[in-house]
Amino acid sequence: MNDTLSLLMNHRSIRKYKNTPVTDEQLQAIISAAQMASTSSNVQAYSVIAVTEPELKKELAELAGNQAYVRECPVFLVWCADLYRLQQVTAEPLQGRASYADTTENFIVATVDAALAAQNAAIAAESLGLGIVYIGGVRNRIAEVSKLLGLPELVYPVFGMCVGVADQEPGQRPRLPLESVLHLNGYAKVQSVEAVKAYDDVMQAYLLERTGGKKDTPWSHVMADRLAEPIRLHMKVFFEDKGFMRK
Amino acid sequence: MNDTLSLLMNHRSIRKYKNTPVTDEQLQAIISAAQMASTSSNVQAYSVIAVTEPELKKELAELAGNQAYVRECPVFLVWCADLYRLQQVTAEPLQGRASYADTTENFIVATVDAALAAQNAAIAAESLGLGIVYIGGVRNRIAEVSKLLGLPELVYPVFGMCVGVADQEPGQRPRLPLESVLHLNGYAKVQSVEAVKAYDDVMQAYLLERTGGKKDTPWSHVMADRLAEPIRLHMKVFFEDKGFMRK
Repeated sequence: MNDTLSLLMNHRSIRKYKNTPVTDEQLQAIISAAQMASTSSNVQAYSVIAVTEPELKKELAELAGNQAYVRECPVFLVWCADLYRLQQVTAEPLQGRASYADTTENFIVATVDAALAAQNAAIAAESLGLGIVYIGGVRNRIAEVSKLLGLPELVYPVFGMCVGVADQEPGQRPRLPLESVLHLNGYAKVQSVEAVKAYDDVMQAYLLERTGGKKDTPWSHVMADRLAEPIRLHMKVFFEDKGFMRK
Repeated sequence: MNDTLSLLMNHRSIRKYKNTPVTDEQLQAIISAAQMASTSSNVQAYSVIAVTEPELKKELAELAGNQAYVRECPVFLVWCADLYRLQQVTAEPLQGRASYADTTENFIVATVDAALAAQNAAIAAESLGLGIVYIGGVRNRIAEVSKLLGLPELVYPVFGMCVGVADQEPGQRPRLPLESVLHLNGYAKVQSVEAVKAYDDVMQAYLLERTGGKKDTPWSHVMADRLAEPIRLHMKVFFEDKGFMRK
């Protein structure tokens, strides 16, 4: 196994950080690596807000569900799908032609562009000895987060990412069996679902050990509880308000 | 610069492949690395279809805009956002409670999960000496692609990815200036847009060289032509038909 594969296989989300700053040089290396990810037709339809001001991080931590690590990490990156820049720079060369920036297709393009760049950034950060964790919580109160960061129309925060030096060594959570996510030459319904039974057992054993015997909920039951929760039902209206997915 | 950073910085999309197969061992290493990417609340809401059957690759190549490399690459991976598996395995533990699988929020979760996993796969493949290119063209005729691969409700192909041994050494396309995508402590509208002027010049020079003087369209004009095209206007209806984004 080569060093890069080892790094990928060794990923853990870090939720406790040392007081060590992330240097400008490190941040630049991380974002430059992010920029080299693939991008649909070179549109580069994403932006990233690096939040280092303590007061701003504190407010974002509160808006994202009071997660202490958002406040405590030295740099909090907010990864945004961004069609605003494209809209601005194309206003003149469009020469009066209609713009399709507001299609569901371009919404997907921008969201995927942001995610690919972010994952490159995550790997770059880890290669530099830093730890990261993705924060979906920026979507909890997405309108307030957007306002706080001054995000214009056609920009939305897809997720946040804490970056810093790890102050913990968490264990690695097992993943679904390979045969549950990998299908050969066509979607294998039965195989994909059946493999979850073995995973339920694996996750029960994992939880029992992690909680000293207190928890042993199978994965499928944890997932059922999650799907039963009406989480972030504001998203559809928010997107349309921001100029996305009107077509 | 460490080896992983060098690998990230050295990315090129590969559109011509040698006739060398991707081994099962390589494919497993690539998908295992993909699985280690972060996933929202451990939902792992994605699947990947590895297409190796020549006839199937040929049909997909046609549906994806007649790109020869989709047919010629030894493995074509179709990365799917997948809430079907979750829906199936939670049917019983939900015990009659309503499921919110069909929210716009869960659509984003599944799309981002697929993208993060895919980008890990891309990096894993490159670390093994293979080349890749993302294929958004699977969304051109997304309903037909979905039918061909037997994708059930709540599954959609986000993008494809050719994998194989490169049979070309393409140059690297310049990216936007760092200050156009990186914002400090808030969205910097003027800075982000102004930086495109310099990029227009860079891309003009790049195109001139690449095309032996035939093309010199500035990036903002290429982007205007792209935004003026009504591309994939079927997406919104397709998603709703597939059970996504109903809330």
